[in-house]
Amino acid sequence: MKPILLTLITLMTLGSCRTNPSEVIGEAQPLSIYKDHLYQYSIIDALLAGVFEGELTISELKTKGDFGIGTFNNLDGEMIVVDGKVLKMRYNGEIVEVGGDEKTPLAYVKFFQADTSFVLHGPNFTFEELKERLAPYLNSNEIYAIRLKGNFDRVDARSVAPIPKPYPELADYLASGGQTSFTFKETSGTCIGFIAPEFTAQVNIPGYHLHFIDDDRENGGHVFGFQADSLSVEIDRIQGFIVDMNSHPDFRTIDLQKNRKKELEVVEQKQ
Amino acid sequence: MKPILLTLITLMTLGSCRTNPSEVIGEAQPLSIYKDHLYQYSIIDALLAGVFEGELTISELKTKGDFGIGTFNNLDGEMIVVDGKVLKMRYNGEIVEVGGDEKTPLAYVKFFQADTSFVLHGPNFTFEELKERLAPYLNSNEIYAIRLKGNFDRVDARSVAPIPKPYPELADYLASGGQTSFTFKETSGTCIGFIAPEFTAQVNIPGYHLHFIDDDRENGGHVFGFQADSLSVEIDRIQGFIVDMNSHPDFRTIDLQKNRKKELEVVEQKQ
Repeated sequence: MKPILLTLITLMTLGSCRTNPSEVIGEAQPLSIYKDHLYQYSIIDALLAGVFEGELTISELKTKGDFGIGTFNNLDGEMIVVDGKVLKMRYNGEIVEVGGDEKTPLAYVKFFQADTSFVLHGPNFTFEELKERLAPYLNSNEIYAIRLKGNFDRVDARSVAPIPKPYPELADYLASGGQTSFTFKETSGTCIGFIAPEFTAQVNIPGYHLHFIDDDRENGGHVFGFQADSLSVEIDRIQGFIVDMNSHPDFRTIDLQKNRKKELEVVEQKQ
Repeated sequence: MKPILLTLITLMTLGSCRTNPSEVIGEAQPLSIYKDHLYQYSIIDALLAGVFEGELTISELKTKGDFGIGTFNNLDGEMIVVDGKVLKMRYNGEIVEVGGDEKTPLAYVKFFQADTSFVLHGPNFTFEELKERLAPYLNSNEIYAIRLKGNFDRVDARSVAPIPKPYPELADYLASGGQTSFTFKETSGTCIGFIAPEFTAQVNIPGYHLHFIDDDRENGGHVFGFQADSLSVEIDRIQGFIVDMNSHPDFRTIDLQKNRKKELEVVEQKQ
């Protein structure tokens, strides 16, 4: 084959590949095999223990999913990833789209693809009642991503306030005024999050974990509870999960031996 | 460009790509970003609870790592993945290379790349003494793959016997004669396995978990303990882990709510 043709073929070949062959080890397969996986950076117990910094940038996070939840370094607000945008819902109510260079100490994202969709009609139901009504659709040994859209009579939410080092434990910080509670009334918006089984404890948050944002992208936060009359429900059963270790030095020195189950319950609920 | 040339380029392009672009979602990246990750199929608590079948074939498992441990469907022996070969170490002492169509209910593999290598000299030390001596090289919040090679004065190991359905819980089965214990003396071989932090409990096996095989590939099993005088130690610090859910129907109906920490301790040790 003539050199110019070979070069052309080589260039086209390289250009159309997403994999740099020199980086591939063994029979490594394309990432597409993990397209139905939850990606998480760090673990919930590290955040509970006070590791409020991570090394993953928002740019990198966006390559792992277009849907999800988390927080930011220094605990600067609740994260919601909605339609591929990473939004910060701050303790003062402000909501901003986040720059690619910011970092997260904890995030859970996925490329959302609903397997089951339906409308859950009222009369008026609470978050707890929704959980009961969705139970027949869920298996307690599986992981799900869930999206709820519609009109809410009321959403109880919170956001966290940034804090400089040295960091306290999360439950202590929230109990001592590190969070702001919001009540949004007669609002239209989206709850985004995950439902995780008990066996993911310490790594993920067993049960439901939702963040809310309204349609105008003006109000939102971590969901404590809500009342709704009719919601579209989309459930994405997840094939597995990927955990990236937090490479920040704090992660290596923190005590992760403690059982933080009760702390997690306190942190997840309105106090 | 002439049609024949275009076809040639297209064929070469397809042949050299590991990614099918139609399967890629969003800004998905090549698998090489997960090249330093532990891959695991199913979770330890499912095996403890009696889920002795999985849907992952050995062919598929080999694409996830060239190094690792696990077991086979129906609990037919201990698995060791050494230099890319998947070997079955049966309860009757037989060791065979496993066909690609066989399946596993639980396996942990990685493409092994040592970050730290050294020789641990005697005098004669036990597995427990080795753990003490390696402690300064390890962080209790990190995951490691580990390979130990050399001459062993003694290795205490076991393998499990296959069992038909209905499956008992693992601890009950092993206590009632479901395992064979071996003592190998004056042998030369390799221990392969992982060191996992406490926070991976229920999913992985906290602490050390090693399988042994001798250089002649004639003796091996799950390691209870050993005595050695000098071993080469290779440690591979792992950046994260990927968990694939077991898609076998048994996984969806088993009780994974129970705390099986004590059962795991019993199962891991010589009885």
